[in-house]
Amino acid sequence: MAQSFWRHDRTGRVSFELFVRTLPPHRGYLVTGGLEQALAYLIGLRFTDGDLAYLRQQSLYQKGFIDHLAGLRFSGDVDAIPEGTVVGANIPLLRVTAPRIEATLVESALLALINHQTLIASKTARIVDAAAGRPVWDFSLRRLHGPDAAVPVARAAYIAGAAGTSTVIAGRLLGIPTTGTMAHHYVLAFGPDGEQDAFEQFLLDYPGRATLLVDTYDVDRGVTRAIAASRATGVPLAAVRLDSGDLIACARSARAALDAAGMTETRILASNDLDEYRIAAAVVAGAPVDAFGVGTMLGTSADAPVLPGVYKLVAQEIDGRVVPVMKFSPEKETDPGTHQVFRTEAGDVLGLVGERVEGRPLLVAVVRGGNVCAELPSLDGIREHCRAERDALPQEVRRIDDPRPWPVRRSRGLAALRGGLRHPAAVATGGTTP
Amino acid sequence: MAQSFWRHDRTGRVSFELFVRTLPPHRGYLVTGGLEQALAYLIGLRFTDGDLAYLRQQSLYQKGFIDHLAGLRFSGDVDAIPEGTVVGANIPLLRVTAPRIEATLVESALLALINHQTLIASKTARIVDAAAGRPVWDFSLRRLHGPDAAVPVARAAYIAGAAGTSTVIAGRLLGIPTTGTMAHHYVLAFGPDGEQDAFEQFLLDYPGRATLLVDTYDVDRGVTRAIAASRATGVPLAAVRLDSGDLIACARSARAALDAAGMTETRILASNDLDEYRIAAAVVAGAPVDAFGVGTMLGTSADAPVLPGVYKLVAQEIDGRVVPVMKFSPEKETDPGTHQVFRTEAGDVLGLVGERVEGRPLLVAVVRGGNVCAELPSLDGIREHCRAERDALPQEVRRIDDPRPWPVRRSRGLAALRGGLRHPAAVATGGTTP
Repeated sequence: MAQSFWRHDRTGRVSFELFVRTLPPHRGYLVTGGLEQALAYLIGLRFTDGDLAYLRQQSLYQKGFIDHLAGLRFSGDVDAIPEGTVVGANIPLLRVTAPRIEATLVESALLALINHQTLIASKTARIVDAAAGRPVWDFSLRRLHGPDAAVPVARAAYIAGAAGTSTVIAGRLLGIPTTGTMAHHYVLAFGPDGEQDAFEQFLLDYPGRATLLVDTYDVDRGVTRAIAASRATGVPLAAVRLDSGDLIACARSARAALDAAGMTETRILASNDLDEYRIAAAVVAGAPVDAFGVGTMLGTSADAPVLPGVYKLVAQEIDGRVVPVMKFSPEKETDPGTHQVFRTEAGDVLGLVGERVEGRPLLVAVVRGGNVCAELPSLDGIREHCRAERDALPQEVRRIDDPRPWPVRRSRGLAALRGGLRHPAAVATGGTTP
Repeated sequence: MAQSFWRHDRTGRVSFELFVRTLPPHRGYLVTGGLEQALAYLIGLRFTDGDLAYLRQQSLYQKGFIDHLAGLRFSGDVDAIPEGTVVGANIPLLRVTAPRIEATLVESALLALINHQTLIASKTARIVDAAAGRPVWDFSLRRLHGPDAAVPVARAAYIAGAAGTSTVIAGRLLGIPTTGTMAHHYVLAFGPDGEQDAFEQFLLDYPGRATLLVDTYDVDRGVTRAIAASRATGVPLAAVRLDSGDLIACARSARAALDAAGMTETRILASNDLDEYRIAAAVVAGAPVDAFGVGTMLGTSADAPVLPGVYKLVAQEIDGRVVPVMKFSPEKETDPGTHQVFRTEAGDVLGLVGERVEGRPLLVAVVRGGNVCAELPSLDGIREHCRAERDALPQEVRRIDDPRPWPVRRSRGLAALRGGLRHPAAVATGGTTP
């Protein structure tokens, strides 16, 4: 396509918008994520010598087009909703306005970056809410769609309120708090009768921060040995971790044993295929769990593993004039024109750029002429913004079970434009219709 | 954990095995994938200066341990089932035998690599079978869990029988066949009345290989215009693509129009949120579709987006003696000892290394002393192996709906070892029990 645009000189400025057609199941809202990585991708866009050599080997491309790609940099504009914002369906998370070839080539990478982090942030927000103030840690690395997903997942989870991650490289690269406990094989390394020895050594190695995994053999005996190890070493028992069995019953029994030993400050961390429903059930039952380690379900958004984001042409220069574009494919109609989203307490209004609509505009200019033009917030700033956004949501939108979708409606200006493009005779401004 | 092992000199050789506890829903078997990348990871394992500097900044690590990490390389052995092999649940896909710290540190990366590609290969095999000989192309990049998932997904899909991918970089890096069609915005770029013009230009640009997307406005009119464009340019119409609406009805109507125009050689490519069920329905209905482009559902294994692979200690040196290890946590029991899998026509037998069991052994030595010791097959060789493996499966295991799981049973030797470890008094060889 890009080569055809180049050949036929259809290289004028166009606008594409990235939006999510429908909310995934069980989601009342999304939490936006991935913008910083999307901008880094755009700013760094270039074809390497290796890329160009590969393209030359194909029979498909003219020399002039490959020369064009060799010099190609992103020179366009980006407007976007800041990361950590709560949004509904069918509104632009990001708009690229750029020469057509540039805007076209970046589609798949932008979608994969933003779909992914928005997916994980949106799932994590539910899990964090279910935990009702108890810390939630990202433990997902081993079950992700490849190890390269780990840093984006840790980042998106942190934005949405996770306390941190077990992915250490995310600490190194992004400053996200990291944590670790122990695996069953740590206990097994101390031999058939070595559970208490294993606990004692770990307490001495990490005084004040050791979390002991107590269910390698039998959870009640494990708790007893953890208490004994703390007494034998004189090192306070910071936490125990439960990773199998009936969470609510095990947590109660562990809490009772710890309290009976006077270890009322020892915390209980739970893991083992947790999700927002299991966590909510434990919290509602009053299970004495102080923190949750959540892996698979958080890191893959397992109940809804896909965010159906799309990237659609909404306006283009034709004969020197910018005209709105609408696609009419069945079930895939698009909203024509470039958009602004206006936030009100009752929901969002999708309007047109330049239209006067009540509410706080959500899209802001972040790139102009290929350069970042806005100060990007820190990761902790994004996280704080996300917390405020979620706290402002009505309970029926935020709740885990059967939430009401965050309302989005079209402005009068947009409704009129759609009507005009459907019935072109009725509209004076022109546009793209069959 | 690694630092504790180092401090307490628990650094002898151990064996970990990577296996999948249960088959995901709707799966009768798995297709193994990711071994080549797992081996590359192991061979390349090292802590960079940046990694070490980060660890030094934490309050958690002793200088001696960080020095140990600085010199750490993978020095162990790996036995594994070749990629593209059909397997059931609860058998080792890979075994690492190495000094304990090395074997421990690689857990999460190995799992993420092998879980991911095995997940996608297993899903793709179902989609390819549903297509009953028609080519299936991976179109998933935009919906993946980050753009870095794209090359592994293209690779795993190709192993399991996909014809290729729309991810061009997978062509460059791995030689996987690539393809592309056109997007709706290509047609829109030629203006309100430009569909036929768009088609003519594309045919002239790519004679013999252009696939025209015919549903930007109306699919019947799109087909009519595609036919007209072919006639006007004199370029044969290689293929049309349907990406919305009722696939079976649209395909029939497109086929009828093409045939009536004498274009009986023109192929029909279908896309639009396809999965194995939709494809099977189209094939069973006799819909005249010649090829399928499959995105989201293939690239995320959307109906079963998680492979519950684990990596468990199965044997370790204690006091200079190698002893089998068994974990007893509820629902997380492991099979003790190092294993071989024996393939028979009736299913697999999970036995012990060195045990005499009938059947073809599946695990082979691939790394010895930190060096790859086997010639790894080419990607096309893996793909061919996978085809033969799937063709050898019973229909009831291979079918898409309600498949029977590929049978796996324990050998007599393994059953005896498990019994002995549960009741240690009855076993002479020793082992790890509560």
